[in-house]
Amino acid sequence: MSTATELVSQPAATPTYDIVRAAYVELQVTDLAASEHFYADLLGMIVAERGTDTVYLRGWEERVHHSLVLRRAPVPAAARLGFRMRREEDLDLLAHDLESQRLAVVWADAPEPGVGRVLRVWDPFGYPLEFVYEMQQVETQLQRFDLHRGAPILRFEHLNLHTPRLEEAFRFWSGLGFRCSEYISTDGPEERITGAWLLRKPSVHDVALTAGRGPRLHHTAFWIGEPAGVLRACDQLAAAGHAHAIERGPGRHGVSNAFFVYLRDPEGHRIELYACDYYTGDPDLKPLRWSVNDVRCRSFWGTRAPDSWYDESSNILGPDGQIVATEDCSVDERTEVMA
Amino acid sequence: MSTATELVSQPAATPTYDIVRAAYVELQVTDLAASEHFYADLLGMIVAERGTDTVYLRGWEERVHHSLVLRRAPVPAAARLGFRMRREEDLDLLAHDLESQRLAVVWADAPEPGVGRVLRVWDPFGYPLEFVYEMQQVETQLQRFDLHRGAPILRFEHLNLHTPRLEEAFRFWSGLGFRCSEYISTDGPEERITGAWLLRKPSVHDVALTAGRGPRLHHTAFWIGEPAGVLRACDQLAAAGHAHAIERGPGRHGVSNAFFVYLRDPEGHRIELYACDYYTGDPDLKPLRWSVNDVRCRSFWGTRAPDSWYDESSNILGPDGQIVATEDCSVDERTEVMA
Amino acid sequence: MSTATELVSQPAATPTYDIVRAAYVELQVTDLAASEHFYADLLGMIVAERGTDTVYLRGWEERVHHSLVLRRAPVPAAARLGFRMRREEDLDLLAHDLESQRLAVVWADAPEPGVGRVLRVWDPFGYPLEFVYEMQQVETQLQRFDLHRGAPILRFEHLNLHTPRLEEAFRFWSGLGFRCSEYISTDGPEERITGAWLLRKPSVHDVALTAGRGPRLHHTAFWIGEPAGVLRACDQLAAAGHAHAIERGPGRHGVSNAFFVYLRDPEGHRIELYACDYYTGDPDLKPLRWSVNDVRCRSFWGTRAPDSWYDESSNILGPDGQIVATEDCSVDERTEVMA
Amino acid sequence: MSTATELVSQPAATPTYDIVRAAYVELQVTDLAASEHFYADLLGMIVAERGTDTVYLRGWEERVHHSLVLRRAPVPAAARLGFRMRREEDLDLLAHDLESQRLAVVWADAPEPGVGRVLRVWDPFGYPLEFVYEMQQVETQLQRFDLHRGAPILRFEHLNLHTPRLEEAFRFWSGLGFRCSEYISTDGPEERITGAWLLRKPSVHDVALTAGRGPRLHHTAFWIGEPAGVLRACDQLAAAGHAHAIERGPGRHGVSNAFFVYLRDPEGHRIELYACDYYTGDPDLKPLRWSVNDVRCRSFWGTRAPDSWYDESSNILGPDGQIVATEDCSVDERTEVMA
Repeated sequence: MSTATELVSQPAATPTYDIVRAAYVELQVTDLAASEHFYADLLGMIVAERGTDTVYLRGWEERVHHSLVLRRAPVPAAARLGFRMRREEDLDLLAHDLESQRLAVVWADAPEPGVGRVLRVWDPFGYPLEFVYEMQQVETQLQRFDLHRGAPILRFEHLNLHTPRLEEAFRFWSGLGFRCSEYISTDGPEERITGAWLLRKPSVHDVALTAGRGPRLHHTAFWIGEPAGVLRACDQLAAAGHAHAIERGPGRHGVSNAFFVYLRDPEGHRIELYACDYYTGDPDLKPLRWSVNDVRCRSFWGTRAPDSWYDESSNILGPDGQIVATEDCSVDERTEVMA
Repeated sequence: MSTATELVSQPAATPTYDIVRAAYVELQVTDLAASEHFYADLLGMIVAERGTDTVYLRGWEERVHHSLVLRRAPVPAAARLGFRMRREEDLDLLAHDLESQRLAVVWADAPEPGVGRVLRVWDPFGYPLEFVYEMQQVETQLQRFDLHRGAPILRFEHLNLHTPRLEEAFRFWSGLGFRCSEYISTDGPEERITGAWLLRKPSVHDVALTAGRGPRLHHTAFWIGEPAGVLRACDQLAAAGHAHAIERGPGRHGVSNAFFVYLRDPEGHRIELYACDYYTGDPDLKPLRWSVNDVRCRSFWGTRAPDSWYDESSNILGPDGQIVATEDCSVDERTEVMA
Repeated sequence: MSTATELVSQPAATPTYDIVRAAYVELQVTDLAASEHFYADLLGMIVAERGTDTVYLRGWEERVHHSLVLRRAPVPAAARLGFRMRREEDLDLLAHDLESQRLAVVWADAPEPGVGRVLRVWDPFGYPLEFVYEMQQVETQLQRFDLHRGAPILRFEHLNLHTPRLEEAFRFWSGLGFRCSEYISTDGPEERITGAWLLRKPSVHDVALTAGRGPRLHHTAFWIGEPAGVLRACDQLAAAGHAHAIERGPGRHGVSNAFFVYLRDPEGHRIELYACDYYTGDPDLKPLRWSVNDVRCRSFWGTRAPDSWYDESSNILGPDGQIVATEDCSVDERTEVMA
Repeated sequence: MSTATELVSQPAATPTYDIVRAAYVELQVTDLAASEHFYADLLGMIVAERGTDTVYLRGWEERVHHSLVLRRAPVPAAARLGFRMRREEDLDLLAHDLESQRLAVVWADAPEPGVGRVLRVWDPFGYPLEFVYEMQQVETQLQRFDLHRGAPILRFEHLNLHTPRLEEAFRFWSGLGFRCSEYISTDGPEERITGAWLLRKPSVHDVALTAGRGPRLHHTAFWIGEPAGVLRACDQLAAAGHAHAIERGPGRHGVSNAFFVYLRDPEGHRIELYACDYYTGDPDLKPLRWSVNDVRCRSFWGTRAPDSWYDESSNILGPDGQIVATEDCSVDERTEVMA
């Protein structure tokens, strides 16, 4: 059995704490007004609250205060990747686990609107993780169809990380209890994983790891109810003079079955509008393997993705307030392209 | 051959003039603001112009000034059913034909915004017809997807008249060059037509005649690009607290293949949001017959329409400014309902 | 605080076992061929296996052997309501809990294709529950779009039970760890619950309880990816001459946000094709209340449901192989209808 | 006024004959079985009739015998571009007009199944045109939703010709009565037309002329009711192992508003699946201009088309049974691509 197959086939850990799902992200932006315009006016997200240097947004379905934080800063960066816990005490249990891995955890009590006690840690690969139990509840606007704008964006869906140390990262997340729904690997005896889709909530993923220079944030995904919404978002962006924001798609992924479009926000942060997924909550979920040479794995219809989609990602904000240094990746996911 | 079959099978006249299509309607309303709110805010039509007692609206695709006129008046009524001619001289040729049928025609020169010379006539059954060639051209907003609201409504589609003298009315419209795409008739030796779909533009219809007390206007239809738009209109109306405006559907008609919903505006005028149609421009178009006893002809899925949909219609404004008296109909279209 | 509010507001139990989701149903049918034709040919479900008196089916996405069992029998009935457990030992823990409630449990080892050890029990209200951990894994056909037929049906979604003892049943399911996402209750001081949506997997429900004569099975729901699929199913049924199978809808529920259609299979069993749902996995999910007098709660667009939808349900097969006797319900959900 | 603007602004001729619409195409194929599999099994078209060396197909809505002829031959080629006339005598009037342009016309009486008297001519640019009035009527299968497969393809829509002599070709078609709905031209004083959309039926086009080496047939388009159908066709092709047939899209054209996908059949002939169009039947239709430098004109979302889409086209079968020689084009439509 190859290392890759062995790796994805081992059951995820069953820790004492329960990470419910990936729940929010903070993106640093240099032009706060331009980013608010993009997310609120063009994509139609709900503005939950504005601070001096921040805008808090959420999707139409969501009942938590926010799922996207935009923060004014000198350089664009992914500043925080947020996860929600099932119980308050899960934070302490998780902190204990992280500390046992020699990671430095930081606590903050209600550091911003909408959240309670927060646990922060930079993981071994440099990603700025944040965990919270208490989040301010708000009324859903799922059925305020008369107010919906844009696609519309219903809720936060997942995070996709660019990492050169994919197998190691896989082990880290597996240790936190994340299961694997699908993976891409190279053919041949030296099988290497080039992508892995990891989940806590029973969808295809909360966190995807894809091979590439990192640590960087490849994209943040939001849930759209159906493919027609993805098309509508494209039509509206283009009509408003923002066709250049459309980087890849719309199209269908083989992996995850997603009907997707990838956008680049005014700062270059990549956003996926995502529909179609499937249920993964059964106990005997077996990871689906795709060969990196199967053109359909990343583009079911065989359409070539632009190089920017493979090469570019958001930098990560480090504990010192500087961009985290990145390292190259020894495998290239691009072998998937049509010959 | 039965009278009905004979009637629908005869080729339409080929008059010297060319009526291009049904193009607009004027609806009298008692509360102009409420009606503007309904059509502009809830259904998302574009307001082309406002007068003291009028609001002119159009769909997002349309390049003519308006396709719907709302006019403040003491009682709700259908005041004008508008048609567009191919050439200016077609108006004179048509006037000549109508006068030869002993109908009194009236001319008006640019009587309102957006139109040139207008020919008006009350037809032999009491409907207030109006014909025009010159209409003010405006820029289409078909691709301003960022501004679209509601379904959205793309363009005026057709008119549906309630008439107790269906065969006679059929002959009148056939004489104006209208062809028949589909019809409903009773079974048995005494075949009677209970509905007929008549066209000039190559869609299923510009004017439908359906058996019922009349003369009255059963509904005005607007074109929606696809079924999903019809559903979205319903969701938005309901979310805005106007679920009561939804009278029938959404559903599929057997006749015309339309995916439809019927709404009642604040004055009770009935609006159809209409998608799916088909092409009828070929020269050998043979009318499709539906039996009035075939449940699928009016509701392909077998859903029973509410009685109001059969019984209620907009009254017609007569030449004297009064409501035109109506007469009952000897056949009932309702035999279609599921046993 | 009213009894109803108190009831829905109490947190669900957190038992030692983990019921993952509602997973399958067995329906007794008198004409097995007719039912197979309905589910396999008209609705397009995958036939997993056929026995002498049984047909096993599943949806296109599913990776378990089956989610619907049709069994030939002298009378139509709902014979088993199946749930899946997270671990094999959960079966024993659950059995212990049920026995402590003085319920008689029965064990069966692989009693039919596709399942391992099975725990059966008639709950205190007469419903024939069945729990299983081990289910035969099969390959998903989610992406065999070229083979999809019908809507298509992607997966089993939920069960809806008609019960005259709603509050008691609520307590029973809450004791098994089911949380409440939404409920309908009467207005006024004597608040009574007339409907409750209960979940284990993070969708709106696995089991809905609605007030009515019972114990009976109101319907079994299957997941359709998007509203267009629901419309397509209706068009296909009607085209194949089965419009009469369409009982209610398509439409939008206020409760659950579902875009739905209700079908009656050849034996009268009710099937819901269901799309649109939302995510309910967060720990602080607060049940949404609808007044039974709010027309939008069951029909967001205000359309009246036919009486059959309220009155008729599948009978339940009892432990003695006879239909379980039913009792009337003292509250009527129908007060929702438009005045 | 530039030559280009002058050209598109002149009214089309109003000849005595009436060409109703583009109606069918004959494609020569080297592997008849492979092409039938592509059009009938993968795209779901209806096989109307098979001959020794021919297969006749049509869309689900169509009431004429066929709209696509596949003919076995040693080399792939576009052999005939078919148009339908309003009356039998229009054939003679048209023949007279063509002969007055010194074109050699050929008559054939019912040369193949489904058609009556046929008028054939190679136009001044080498395209093999064919005109017919009488076509065998068949029953529409528009509402046999239970049998629909693929997108499905509802009807023949239009032809797109690659031509190096665009302005001349424009004049030829204008002389036959084709009006212009939209055009693309170069910026600057030497304005050149690089694309023109020409119509008889009131849609955006029956014939499009686009600048490129020619005479060649760029593509044949079929009508799909809605964007979702275009997506479904892609999913089905890919699932059946034919992702390589998808050349460009799905996407939205600025020109025509089409929601499109371009496929290459097994012989390399290009097919467009086409939805969304708009109504063009009004008498004062003014051509919409797009600058060739406006990225949105050919791809509203800004997606770059592959070079093959600009460079490759079907060769034309000449009167001698040989491929017609082509000449290069002095303007390149590709300046549209994103910088």
